[in-house]
Amino acid sequence: MKSKTEYLKFRTAKRIEFVNITREVEKVVRESGVKEGLALVNPMHITAAVIVNDEEGGLKRDYARVLEGLVPYGGEYEHNVGEDNAAAHIWRQLMGHQVVLPVTKGELDFGPWEQVFYCEFDGQREKRVLVKVIGE
Amino acid sequence: MKSKTEYLKFRTAKRIEFVNITREVEKVVRESGVKEGLALVNPMHITAAVIVNDEEGGLKRDYARVLEGLVPYGGEYEHNVGEDNAAAHIWRQLMGHQVVLPVTKGELDFGPWEQVFYCEFDGQREKRVLVKVIGE
Amino acid sequence: MKSKTEYLKFRTAKRIEFVNITREVEKVVRESGVKEGLALVNPMHITAAVIVNDEEGGLKRDYARVLEGLVPYGGEYEHNVGEDNAAAHIWRQLMGHQVVLPVTKGELDFGPWEQVFYCEFDGQREKRVLVKVIGE
Repeated sequence: MKSKTEYLKFRTAKRIEFVNITREVEKVVRESGVKEGLALVNPMHITAAVIVNDEEGGLKRDYARVLEGLVPYGGEYEHNVGEDNAAAHIWRQLMGHQVVLPVTKGELDFGPWEQVFYCEFDGQREKRVLVKVIGE
Repeated sequence: MKSKTEYLKFRTAKRIEFVNITREVEKVVRESGVKEGLALVNPMHITAAVIVNDEEGGLKRDYARVLEGLVPYGGEYEHNVGEDNAAAHIWRQLMGHQVVLPVTKGELDFGPWEQVFYCEFDGQREKRVLVKVIGE
Repeated sequence: MKSKTEYLKFRTAKRIEFVNITREVEKVVRESGVKEGLALVNPMHITAAVIVNDEEGGLKRDYARVLEGLVPYGGEYEHNVGEDNAAAHIWRQLMGHQVVLPVTKGELDFGPWEQVFYCEFDGQREKRVLVKVIGE
């Protein structure tokens, strides 16, 4: 069995941002030498998510607007004592916080529109995303 | 390490549909020869989800009604320029878009009610679901 | 390849409860002998979830209040014929029902605040959570 672990670093300019990280994940997969296996892409922080969806600017704004409608960032939360990011913790859960990606013949085994995104919900400070590839 | 990858094909009659695929996934697990490992079940399209829940018709209608209440299909979305499926992209995230299933002694290691479903949110055209089993 | 499977048992005092299981998962990882790999933590029941988030009491109450606001437990559901737990089935999906955890150098490869929680949404009866570690 082979494995490789990398930590991608992010510091977004805005508090809420959707960053396409497909290229970075593909690079780790290639460097791992794994031909058949799985790649876990997991934010190491609890106010962020990693998802697979479409590279389309309108959709990213739709996510943010829908999440704000369901769980308003400025709402009242018990967590927000000396904090103001309770909504970010909950958004991460609603969006599905991590992904496991298939690796086939040494590449991400994706459909035509699948892209990987780092979803920052409380940014403007350094965060990490772990990419771990295992297989043979 | 052993691995096996299969692509299940779907073309649902309705735009929104919940299809039980437990048998199909079990078949891939058996054919893989993996006794101890993991099975990733991942839609290769970004307006669909794979979930584990209960085989019960009322619950499936409840999912659709709840999702429509939270993120109306016919609502206003920036993504819907020449498209009308923004809600399907978002429903997929709310439902949790993929699953990783445990394989123990050559079988899906499930509790009494766990069943696997392909959740189509923008159907009536061909879609694929990847099943990848790795282990020993 | 090495693997180890354990079944954690729960019977919560309350119907809705968030139980920190990080220690129990770490124990299985250590006992597995896996140095580099993945750990799947998966509830074997369909009215529960496993998530990674913050150990903070206010946030747990926020989850419950937000979920109740989005999908009221006492609402009307087709599933609730002889049952009353449709909302629990749906909450599990919204929260993301399972997690896959990275194992590096024999330990959970976590950021500073990541903790694992069993989220019971229909408790007061025995439930199980599967922990499966694979790797080398």
